[in-house]
Amino acid sequence: MKKIINAPEDVVVQMIEGMVLAHPELLEWNRKYKIITRKELNPDKVTLISGGGSGHEPAHGGYVGKGMLDAAVCGDVFASPSTIQVYNAITKTASSKGTLLIIKNYSGDCMNFDAAAEMAFEDDDIPVEKVYVNDDVSVADDASTAGRRGVAGTVFVHKIAGAAAERGDALAEVKAIAEKTVRNVRSIGFALTSCTVPAKGSPTFALGEDEIEFGVGIHGEPGIAREKLVPADELAAKAVQALLADMPVNPQEEVALMINGFGATPLQELYILNRSVSLLLEEAKIRVYRTFVGNYMSAIDMAGASVTLLKLDDELKQALDYSAETVAYKC
Amino acid sequence: MKKIINAPEDVVVQMIEGMVLAHPELLEWNRKYKIITRKELNPDKVTLISGGGSGHEPAHGGYVGKGMLDAAVCGDVFASPSTIQVYNAITKTASSKGTLLIIKNYSGDCMNFDAAAEMAFEDDDIPVEKVYVNDDVSVADDASTAGRRGVAGTVFVHKIAGAAAERGDALAEVKAIAEKTVRNVRSIGFALTSCTVPAKGSPTFALGEDEIEFGVGIHGEPGIAREKLVPADELAAKAVQALLADMPVNPQEEVALMINGFGATPLQELYILNRSVSLLLEEAKIRVYRTFVGNYMSAIDMAGASVTLLKLDDELKQALDYSAETVAYKC
Repeated sequence: MKKIINAPEDVVVQMIEGMVLAHPELLEWNRKYKIITRKELNPDKVTLISGGGSGHEPAHGGYVGKGMLDAAVCGDVFASPSTIQVYNAITKTASSKGTLLIIKNYSGDCMNFDAAAEMAFEDDDIPVEKVYVNDDVSVADDASTAGRRGVAGTVFVHKIAGAAAERGDALAEVKAIAEKTVRNVRSIGFALTSCTVPAKGSPTFALGEDEIEFGVGIHGEPGIAREKLVPADELAAKAVQALLADMPVNPQEEVALMINGFGATPLQELYILNRSVSLLLEEAKIRVYRTFVGNYMSAIDMAGASVTLLKLDDELKQALDYSAETVAYKC
Repeated sequence: MKKIINAPEDVVVQMIEGMVLAHPELLEWNRKYKIITRKELNPDKVTLISGGGSGHEPAHGGYVGKGMLDAAVCGDVFASPSTIQVYNAITKTASSKGTLLIIKNYSGDCMNFDAAAEMAFEDDDIPVEKVYVNDDVSVADDASTAGRRGVAGTVFVHKIAGAAAERGDALAEVKAIAEKTVRNVRSIGFALTSCTVPAKGSPTFALGEDEIEFGVGIHGEPGIAREKLVPADELAAKAVQALLADMPVNPQEEVALMINGFGATPLQELYILNRSVSLLLEEAKIRVYRTFVGNYMSAIDMAGASVTLLKLDDELKQALDYSAETVAYKC
């Protein structure tokens, strides 16, 4: 294992500290519970909290800030934060309008976020609603998930629910637009290499020199098929086909497109993949309203990428364009 | 070689197309000469042009836009653009106030940018000034450079000269603040793995499982020493020591800090490195005015990072904070 780290057991806390030191104008943190919060919390807006295992940087701390999240709860690398961590995030950021938890659909996260929500309501009278993001069209009901996994599409849920909360919507409205976003977003990814969890020190899985894992999860979980690496245009065609088979998009309908790197993929390749995907969508007469290319939801140091489509209407477009000021997303 | 590309010979043009397709609101391009330009050129401001070999994404196209560059000229991967490419960039973006070329100090780039400047002045009466960025404190006068190399500090030159040009400064003033930035900026990098040039298909250099190249260049050029990988805190100490030995910074003086990834380095590691560097600067009572963590000047798919310090005064701070709207830098 070759990484710019100190001790593997310090990775999460030092990563958080490094992020907060870089952006003292935006972020604060709680070392004990590994919670990253907005520097200035607004007590009169719906509080948005997300989080999950670490290793997906810039998720989730990178989306804390004006117009997106109020707090991100950081678990160990690829492990859900505990109930008590999430509970503390809820109580420390409670507002007059209640709290919405944005949860990626993994069994561990669902269990801990659900229990924390119940505890905050029963012990502290904080109204807490939840949305579960399950945008990965690859596989369902594997070892860590009942239903589908939540992956890069989660960033769009942060953005759109964040806009609704920031402009003053009530909890039920923020939840409703978050759920609409979940219904309209689909992702699919593929890996060229494995990731390496620092505490383990060796790759999570093995791939041949000419192989990819198509449909891989953001923790290196197996996907749909182990296949030969093909050119970018063919990879893009497979990805777009998988997405549109699951969520048809009609000609002239509008989408937001995200080409997400898994951590070790150079931008050069992400832009080449974006070209391939964009030209395919153009061919299908699907209109791309906005494109996002970069590392938005990574898998530590995995090489590979995912493609996300978010089907838009006027309400979602307006929320997508709403001002946001975070480490990893500005508009 | 495992990359998300089509044919290696199409990498540069498809990368540019992918970037422009992602940001039609900001960018246009000339396919023949591989020039990325601002969508809306202002004929009454100093024109800023940079560029160089491709493979450093998001440099240089990612810095084209309001408050930074007017054009980026894209050479082949790790190869200078030709004189005729640069000449075309100059003539196609000429303004009433003249043009400043921001050149990373490599022999090939200097030769071609210099010749293009001369041609544009002699044939087209376009006043062209030049600045050469040489921020890498690692080595001087190697195979591709007379003097020091230009690396990630170039991004600060784009930003600060870009602000001066955008607010309407004259050519001599824009050149003066760019040169001041060059005098005040220093960088040092290290590689954990080699990069792989697509057309070559195999790694540029070999490193043992526990080795780093300290002082590496952004094309994988050799640095100061081949060393054992040490923890992030020690890497940071070596880097900060090298920078401050070359450019002393007094207690209470202010700097901008950039922790730059070389392409395959996960953000998790860049933030951990930022923590180490930031704490060292704090210890030395050097004040960090702003911090930038991410892939700003990459070396295709090299794993590793560089640390850049820019010593600030009021003039430079004001220019650093001036509004910018580009793909890779927003403020």
